Amino acid sequence: MAATHHSLIILGGGPAGLTAGLYAARARMDHLLIEKGAEGGQVLLTDWIDNYPGFPDGLSGFDLAEKMAAQAKRFDLHSMFGNVISMDLSAPIKQLELDNGDQLSCDTLIICTGASPRMLGVPGEKELTGKGVSYCATCDAPFYRNMHVAVVGGGNTAVQEAAHLTKFASKVTLIHRRDELRATKVVQEKAFANEKIDYLWDTTVTGIEGNEGVESLRLLNRDGTKSSLAVEGIFVLIGVIPNNDMLPLDMLNADQGGFIPTNCETNTVIEGVFAAGDIRSKKVRQVINAAGEGATAVLAAEEYLTNLN
Amino acid sequence: MAATHHSLIILGGGPAGLTAGLYAARARMDHLLIEKGAEGGQVLLTDWIDNYPGFPDGLSGFDLAEKMAAQAKRFDLHSMFGNVISMDLSAPIKQLELDNGDQLSCDTLIICTGASPRMLGVPGEKELTGKGVSYCATCDAPFYRNMHVAVVGGGNTAVQEAAHLTKFASKVTLIHRRDELRATKVVQEKAFANEKIDYLWDTTVTGIEGNEGVESLRLLNRDGTKSSLAVEGIFVLIGVIPNNDMLPLDMLNADQGGFIPTNCETNTVIEGVFAAGDIRSKKVRQVINAAGEGATAVLAAEEYLTNLN
Repeated sequence: MAATHHSLIILGGGPAGLTAGLYAARARMDHLLIEKGAEGGQVLLTDWIDNYPGFPDGLSGFDLAEKMAAQAKRFDLHSMFGNVISMDLSAPIKQLELDNGDQLSCDTLIICTGASPRMLGVPGEKELTGKGVSYCATCDAPFYRNMHVAVVGGGNTAVQEAAHLTKFASKVTLIHRRDELRATKVVQEKAFANEKIDYLWDTTVTGIEGNEGVESLRLLNRDGTKSSLAVEGIFVLIGVIPNNDMLPLDMLNADQGGFIPTNCETNTVIEGVFAAGDIRSKKVRQVINAAGEGATAVLAAEEYLTNLN
Repeated sequence: MAATHHSLIILGGGPAGLTAGLYAARARMDHLLIEKGAEGGQVLLTDWIDNYPGFPDGLSGFDLAEKMAAQAKRFDLHSMFGNVISMDLSAPIKQLELDNGDQLSCDTLIICTGASPRMLGVPGEKELTGKGVSYCATCDAPFYRNMHVAVVGGGNTAVQEAAHLTKFASKVTLIHRRDELRATKVVQEKAFANEKIDYLWDTTVTGIEGNEGVESLRLLNRDGTKSSLAVEGIFVLIGVIPNNDMLPLDMLNADQGGFIPTNCETNTVIEGVFAAGDIRSKKVRQVINAAGEGATAVLAAEEYLTNLN
């Protein structure tokens, strides 16, 4: 059976993918957006978003995703639910295979599969996400004015964000499983000089407790000592995992973390293949720049198609 | 008199600047946003925006600017009206001079001064902007379904957008002051093969007429012949002018058009100086990616400040 062909396939329906879909649909490109789960992606799990410009009072991640999807559909977005399990990007016509055996092909592909924060994987974490458990201090720090919060991690992000949180929180406890930080020296020095930050070394979080919101953490020291820490919030900053199972990582020259490098116009190293949003190899993973990259990717794809012979 | 100092100065209050302001204010950085005219910038002149993700029914440029400004102010944006006329970026402490003689200084500067489309400068143009006169086909093409529209220009953008417009318009007349296009060959060939496009060579637009909306164009051929063309819309695609009067263009390594090159994280060639939005040297100038770049720039500035000794 021949693969169904489109000029453009957009893989993923988060903010980057939905914005790409909006632009592709408005441009009347022959397009298809493939989403694995629910439209919205990671943003659906975000309780409240205060920093997506245009919403003075903020809005829920669910609302934002719904609005983005409705807007794209108003311009006749073509989308389907499907699980792409592999692809062949070695020829100008790109081939995608779904888990049900269906084949799709395209001239241009925009990869918007996103990423997820690495979770602790402990009891209470999922239940209290958005109710005191956060994975983004840039996003959520202002919600913790005059509260005691914990940060888990020892890398640059964790230590910088711990310092950032002290602008709001009354006290920040940094919990790290080792006895020294991985963050660069200057970042460490600033954190050590900050009187609002204290440290729990050789310590892991084994559980998060609370009813309406986070109330306390269960802790385990490397020496076997168990303890409890009363906090009103916990920022888990131990890394980000790209959703890249279906991608040919070698061909795409993926970075060490499995993210896809592009130039500023979202071109990957493969002609006709673009990446936008959290799957990109980059520093800033915010909804607003994922959306911007989705728009950029469609205009780059359109230009590529114009120049195709 | 010593200059008033801030960790961060944001120059310009369009979508890039207001998003930078939102992020800086939420991060409680010591910041100041300087806007020359009205907050919102170029977007204020945009009648209706259908492609800013999150607004299923679209909204006016004025509304979007107002919402962005209100959101930043909710987090205590510090802003002032002022006209920066020159700056010294040669030392780590950057110096800015205003037209009233005031001096400001900063450790980090985000340039968001924007750009304006080059206008024809003919009678009727300003009055009918947003009522049939447009400077962005990507933005406005879907508003012209089954209508006859004109495109003015002969470069890649004009010719590509003329082809793009044929997906909506019943007929597109490309008006060019020369007898051949500047666009690349493949772009030209596709346009010439498109039956919906016709051409008026050696022709300039001398006036735009209409009451509620565009009704006709006054034309002048190089041979002196005057004529009139009935159209319902006109897309003026003859270039973009950066707002760069106050910038040290050599130091910033500005491109031929006067735009500022940056890497994908918005760093210019000067340490501690960032550029976001339409002033950047780039291909895609849309509200959504200007906003995304504003967020990226603040996080890059924050990182730079963290690593300052």
